[in-house]
Amino acid sequence: MDDAFEKLGAVNLDELELDSGKTLKHVEQAYAMYGTPKDGGANVILVCHALTGSHHLGGDDVPGLPPGWLNPILGPGRALDTSRLCVICVNNLCSPYGSTSPMSPDPLTGAPYAMKFPVVTPRDVARAQHAVLEALGIRGIAMALGGSFGGMISLEYALQFPRDTRCCGVIAAPARLYPQAIAYNEVQRQAITSDPDWNGGDYYPGQGPARGLATARMLAMITYRSEQNFAGRWMRGMNTDSRPHEWGAKFKVEEYLAHHGSALVSRFDANCYLYTTRAMDLHDVSAGRGDLNEAFSPLAGKGLLAAGISSDILFPNWQVMEIARCAGKAGARADYEEIESDNGHDAFLIDFDQMDEILRFFFKREGI
Amino acid sequence: MDDAFEKLGAVNLDELELDSGKTLKHVEQAYAMYGTPKDGGANVILVCHALTGSHHLGGDDVPGLPPGWLNPILGPGRALDTSRLCVICVNNLCSPYGSTSPMSPDPLTGAPYAMKFPVVTPRDVARAQHAVLEALGIRGIAMALGGSFGGMISLEYALQFPRDTRCCGVIAAPARLYPQAIAYNEVQRQAITSDPDWNGGDYYPGQGPARGLATARMLAMITYRSEQNFAGRWMRGMNTDSRPHEWGAKFKVEEYLAHHGSALVSRFDANCYLYTTRAMDLHDVSAGRGDLNEAFSPLAGKGLLAAGISSDILFPNWQVMEIARCAGKAGARADYEEIESDNGHDAFLIDFDQMDEILRFFFKREGI
Repeated sequence: MDDAFEKLGAVNLDELELDSGKTLKHVEQAYAMYGTPKDGGANVILVCHALTGSHHLGGDDVPGLPPGWLNPILGPGRALDTSRLCVICVNNLCSPYGSTSPMSPDPLTGAPYAMKFPVVTPRDVARAQHAVLEALGIRGIAMALGGSFGGMISLEYALQFPRDTRCCGVIAAPARLYPQAIAYNEVQRQAITSDPDWNGGDYYPGQGPARGLATARMLAMITYRSEQNFAGRWMRGMNTDSRPHEWGAKFKVEEYLAHHGSALVSRFDANCYLYTTRAMDLHDVSAGRGDLNEAFSPLAGKGLLAAGISSDILFPNWQVMEIARCAGKAGARADYEEIESDNGHDAFLIDFDQMDEILRFFFKREGI
Repeated sequence: MDDAFEKLGAVNLDELELDSGKTLKHVEQAYAMYGTPKDGGANVILVCHALTGSHHLGGDDVPGLPPGWLNPILGPGRALDTSRLCVICVNNLCSPYGSTSPMSPDPLTGAPYAMKFPVVTPRDVARAQHAVLEALGIRGIAMALGGSFGGMISLEYALQFPRDTRCCGVIAAPARLYPQAIAYNEVQRQAITSDPDWNGGDYYPGQGPARGLATARMLAMITYRSEQNFAGRWMRGMNTDSRPHEWGAKFKVEEYLAHHGSALVSRFDANCYLYTTRAMDLHDVSAGRGDLNEAFSPLAGKGLLAAGISSDILFPNWQVMEIARCAGKAGARADYEEIESDNGHDAFLIDFDQMDEILRFFFKREGI
């Protein structure tokens, strides 16, 4: 990658109106850009990142940000071909990677917002990203595209700003959170908030509820993978053959979860985790827009890609099909594709060969 | 129910050899009996209870024990017809409801075992129950029958004591725990042990890690039900229509989980929860017995009922089918039945009309 492959920046918004009716002042939005925008944004793909991801999609590692997560399909000649497309990713509101979040100073007090931060929704997150593109002089984009929580944001971006969005891509995300996913989120929040080190959210500048956040991540990791994936990797393998009946004996799957639990603690903030999972819970394209079919009416005449994952237990493929079905009824050129994989929900971060093919096909059809 | 419907008792075993090679001394085993054993036990159904259940299956409430969980199919004229059958349930080793557990005094010190209790397996639990029946003068039984963790025990009972067991019934349980179920158990244990009130298990006579145990139960409740069940009951319903963007707003599914979390805390012990879920993890009929098909060879010529649940996400129906398939290959009269239900894993505690029909059919075929 050449030095100019990735441009990192930030935009400051004076204020952001929220779905709750509240207004957030002095909103920072970090972003990354790959390639050069043309024709007012006609070649721009807005990529929306997932729960604990960041706007840093690819290229050299950036201190303080997790490694790029889209490398295999981002760059010259790849599906997200930066020799002709401009790919932009904005760090989500409430993420700890540079945008305004519960870690940020409350302008009223100068101290971190913590739990005084307002509850936000995927619509709010998308609205903040639209303001970033406006500030960058980009009006109409080719596509808003995201996976998991990012898919909820890309969908809300297209629904709120249809005149500025030609196409929408949703990978492994639903039109609205179903109660089982809300339940998984709530147990994760419970793990965090019942940790005394959470302290009602007032733990800054300390690390906060490390054990609770680790437990939350361990549960999340189960929902991100699948039985096929776990059984294929380890089945009932342990770290000991000789003494399985001691508490020190661990199944490989337990070690895997523990590793991912502590890894997240070292890079993520617990209050941000609470707010982001709550934003996810509040995802419902039909809220205030009539029924599900009416909600998709802004996509009439637009291209809509919905891609599910065959083994996804968090947002099962039938939930993603629902998007294609409703968007199609609303008059979108709706396409449902399926990633055939045993990797579970995380397949959108793993099975890049299929992601590549699905995106190329859709781009070609839509002239992107 | 007449007064004599339920007979509660307890048996003291001098010692119990464990799979770990350790020996547990002075083992108490509480039990309940419904009906009268005949012909040395030929009319006895040993029912094995699940994780947080007890030996109290039906009839009037008993102080200190959860309500009977088998009432709809237990009693004269019901599938478990106590006018001709004798139904016995032994409180599982490690359960807080009367049998020896981590709450019991360690004979060496007089203080509760807590985490000095040895890790046990479903085979150990079954062996203790066999010793109870021996002490009661019951040698050969008609059937060992259980659901969930109880199904693992009934299976291990039949495999360890084939000469004393004519038939075996396994409802919603696998031949071996697959890694996803181990993972769910591990996250639950993590929630408990990372609660400072757990204190390495040394919290007696106090209540212990109430928050951790509640979180564990909340997660368990998700795995006991299904998306269909949650969506059918509440979908995205909340406890407020006016202010969904406040932290005090709760989805109905969150309230449901919270209710079940605190309900378990009021009736169960955290260390018992750790030991019982670990026993479940260690469930593997093939351990030390060759491959899965060889493991089932003791069931040759016997009746084997395996009943799965269509919507079970904890022990999916294909895991229960595996039992019927392997037992059939081993020469058992193996029957797979399916409970068609949206209630998820808990269907075996809810859909008693189907349980009743399945049991009657099997009893008739096997002359029970």
